[in-house]
Amino acid sequence: MEMPSRLIEDAVNEISKLPGIGKKTALRLVLHLIRQNKDATLSLAETLIKMRQEIKYCKNCHNFSDQEICNICLSPRRDPSIICVVQDSRDVMAIENTGQYQGHYHVLGGIISPVEGIGPDTLEIDSLLDRVKSGVVKEIIFALSTTMEGDTTTFYITKKIGNPNIRITSIARGIPLGGELEYTDEITLGRSIIARTNYDMN
Amino acid sequence: MEMPSRLIEDAVNEISKLPGIGKKTALRLVLHLIRQNKDATLSLAETLIKMRQEIKYCKNCHNFSDQEICNICLSPRRDPSIICVVQDSRDVMAIENTGQYQGHYHVLGGIISPVEGIGPDTLEIDSLLDRVKSGVVKEIIFALSTTMEGDTTTFYITKKIGNPNIRITSIARGIPLGGELEYTDEITLGRSIIARTNYDMN
Repeated sequence: MEMPSRLIEDAVNEISKLPGIGKKTALRLVLHLIRQNKDATLSLAETLIKMRQEIKYCKNCHNFSDQEICNICLSPRRDPSIICVVQDSRDVMAIENTGQYQGHYHVLGGIISPVEGIGPDTLEIDSLLDRVKSGVVKEIIFALSTTMEGDTTTFYITKKIGNPNIRITSIARGIPLGGELEYTDEITLGRSIIARTNYDMN
Repeated sequence: MEMPSRLIEDAVNEISKLPGIGKKTALRLVLHLIRQNKDATLSLAETLIKMRQEIKYCKNCHNFSDQEICNICLSPRRDPSIICVVQDSRDVMAIENTGQYQGHYHVLGGIISPVEGIGPDTLEIDSLLDRVKSGVVKEIIFALSTTMEGDTTTFYITKKIGNPNIRITSIARGIPLGGELEYTDEITLGRSIIARTNYDMN
């Protein structure tokens, strides 16, 4: 699309670098900003700069944080003896949203994938092992994706921990609540039969 | 969704003020920016600020422009005797994309709409009349939407011009190329019969 202005063209090009935003959507957003007061654009731009420049990773769990140590790690209401190991911060948000977990987290920053050249050294595995060695930890819950890479990562870390006194668990896999059997893939269905649980009449 | 960081929360709130972008999409964009180099966010933010602060409206046609007078009005290859009247700058871009028009434009900044409180005074109508009075203009093409508001605006401006020596035209309405009769709304179909054109064997 031909642009009436180099300024608009530059802005459209910058916005359309964002994932899932094409040139037409970018132009719509730019025209929206032009219709709004200048302050709206300044506020948007300055908030993004501040966020990007000041965002930190928690030195303990490597989740996003505004301070050196994140709110979850600092909270006296959270149980530091349980660590839930996840791939990235979005997983922390998803689990926090359930309101079902009161332990700590550890964000690996990825999972082991030889194909993509992601080895154990590029992930936050050593820092997890250090946390385990501190003696506070009693259980590690793996909440990684159910792929070969996820399973490899779980296996690798479990072996590295090598401590039979620490309980190693994995989040339950099975049919989603409200999910229908006939639409469930056979691997999930197979696993859900193997990992069947006792029926509780109460 | 619970946010691990106030910085991320603020950024998500700012981005989700944009039209068509919800909180989930905004979060995806913020996490994308965090994964990228800091320069990517700085470049995006600074381009938006520069665009919003420096964008001007052409003093002649009121289209967006980087200078006092826009490229189209300045171009020696464009015919200043024809002015195409449009509602906003997006319409200029759409017509420019066709490559079929070599005249000038006039961006009204809206159309007359009593319901929305948009009267002739809030639009760039007086400046259009001034351009017409300059004596250079031979034809005015109205390319406004086919609504009561569009028709009212065309009628109002035509009456104000009140000069029988100036040709007043409107872009053709009819069945889109490749459009099928049975799927065309009856008003368009009716108009296309009334405004039928002679068949040209060449």
